Amino acid sequence: MELIEKIQLGQIRAIAKAITLIENNTEEKEKLIDALHPFTGNAYVIGVTGPPGAGKSTIVDRFIQFERDRGKKIAVIAVDPSSPFSGGAILGDRLRMQTHATDRGVFIRSMASRGHLGGISTGTSGAIKVFDAAGFDTIILETIGVGQTEVEVIEMADLILLTLVPGMGDEIQAMKAGIMEIADLFLVNKSDLDGADRLKSEIEYMLMLGSGMNEEAIPPIKMASAKNNTGTEELYISIFERLNLFKESGLLANRRKIRIQKEIEHIFASKLKEILYTRLNMKENINLWIERVYNREIRPYTFVNEKMMELKKENVL
Amino acid sequence: MELIEKIQLGQIRAIAKAITLIENNTEEKEKLIDALHPFTGNAYVIGVTGPPGAGKSTIVDRFIQFERDRGKKIAVIAVDPSSPFSGGAILGDRLRMQTHATDRGVFIRSMASRGHLGGISTGTSGAIKVFDAAGFDTIILETIGVGQTEVEVIEMADLILLTLVPGMGDEIQAMKAGIMEIADLFLVNKSDLDGADRLKSEIEYMLMLGSGMNEEAIPPIKMASAKNNTGTEELYISIFERLNLFKESGLLANRRKIRIQKEIEHIFASKLKEILYTRLNMKENINLWIERVYNREIRPYTFVNEKMMELKKENVL
Repeated sequence: MELIEKIQLGQIRAIAKAITLIENNTEEKEKLIDALHPFTGNAYVIGVTGPPGAGKSTIVDRFIQFERDRGKKIAVIAVDPSSPFSGGAILGDRLRMQTHATDRGVFIRSMASRGHLGGISTGTSGAIKVFDAAGFDTIILETIGVGQTEVEVIEMADLILLTLVPGMGDEIQAMKAGIMEIADLFLVNKSDLDGADRLKSEIEYMLMLGSGMNEEAIPPIKMASAKNNTGTEELYISIFERLNLFKESGLLANRRKIRIQKEIEHIFASKLKEILYTRLNMKENINLWIERVYNREIRPYTFVNEKMMELKKENVL
Repeated sequence: MELIEKIQLGQIRAIAKAITLIENNTEEKEKLIDALHPFTGNAYVIGVTGPPGAGKSTIVDRFIQFERDRGKKIAVIAVDPSSPFSGGAILGDRLRMQTHATDRGVFIRSMASRGHLGGISTGTSGAIKVFDAAGFDTIILETIGVGQTEVEVIEMADLILLTLVPGMGDEIQAMKAGIMEIADLFLVNKSDLDGADRLKSEIEYMLMLGSGMNEEAIPPIKMASAKNNTGTEELYISIFERLNLFKESGLLANRRKIRIQKEIEHIFASKLKEILYTRLNMKENINLWIERVYNREIRPYTFVNEKMMELKKENVL
């Protein structure tokens, strides 16, 4: 496949095209992902999450600079759960693209939800493979980290950094709780603001409670001001120290294998759905079935179990 | 089933037990849902969504009062995407329970995410059925409305009310954009605050843009201060006016049929997964497959397609 070669050469248009093909669930998707597969597994995927206003973009921009100073190629996938209706993601993306527009070692791509098709997960997972095969050393996944899809996405990362800032409402901080359990590194950003030390203590306390008061089990908490560029290099270094630790301990391989398991299960599920829908003439029959369930003539589980029995008798299942 | 009778009698412990059985995906779940099915379809399900701090709880409390004044039974399902780690949901829930503790016509239940099992949707859909069969006239679904799971949940409602307040950050408002498209009614809460009128205009403008400048197509925008109890009765009345409109136009039946379609598809998918996993000895084999994909010996889609072909040749599929 010619496209694969262009991706491996790091050609920007080929990369963008491949991501779009995967995101839109086109026929080429399967072949493309399989063709990329042998060339993946080299990039580090770093998840950066935190509430709106926590300074994620600034952190990521500093990160880009550090990586470029060391001659590394870096890609950023900005996951935005809001719809194209707002236009927010796209606008922000374009502004950020301009800053790095002349640098071919940086690629920023935003993933916005396309209606209710759950395309964010597929698109993000595909984009990671494309960037990985294209020779990017590091891939940043940036999300606000609320809700199950976001957790699904952030779990595609090898390491998760949670960014918090002092002075946000308690409710907003509470929204992060689901993420707190899976974060590998914490950052108190805007460390020059009042309440930064207190926030650090609060995070420490919550983590201690969550770990059964085992101090050794809690992840590091860093302080930085991304805007003033203080503490950011230390953060950058500790991210890679931790990644090396994960690599040595086998945790990194484990996480990647869990991702592969999810992928295999997902592919099986979608193939099965296709087959079932054909065998049951789902398209022709579904409206009749809905009508009967709606009118309380049949009950949902009893009905599906009967259909499955029919297929078994016909040796279809 | 004795439990069903107790639910129909509105017994609180039976209701709570049934919801837990469904939420935890127990063996009894299927029978329970099927047994409830003939007695459902009577309650109105109203979704109340909006960012943290928009005053949703206060709105819902006013709503409870209006319903009780009219002798109606009302249930509230508070969906909280944060984990048990925070304890926030449960605490809030208990505080609110106390207020209505002596009133058997009010039932408040919170649904917190249980890890990554996606139990919120199943739990919420089940709780709606239980409350419906138990004779509750109205069921409120309260969520913060961000992310795909939340959208999935809020779409279980017959009508969606989106609550916003003046003076929240632009980013937080933008997070709501996905919900804006599916809301049936808007509320500018804390209407006594500066900027309330401007927020109303902004919503109006965004909706006008979204509808192709068709003023008749945009949903109503109400102003209220839930705390001062001004505008709340008008809101309450307009919610039911709109529900009646949906009923007459057939939109309500349509929405409920879409929910049934999703339910049927979901049951089919889970049944299929069970069968496939047995036939392929998934439990025994999955680790070997993961290892081979991880080592780049096999490619994910090619591998799954081969497995599916094998099953077809054996007449299993």
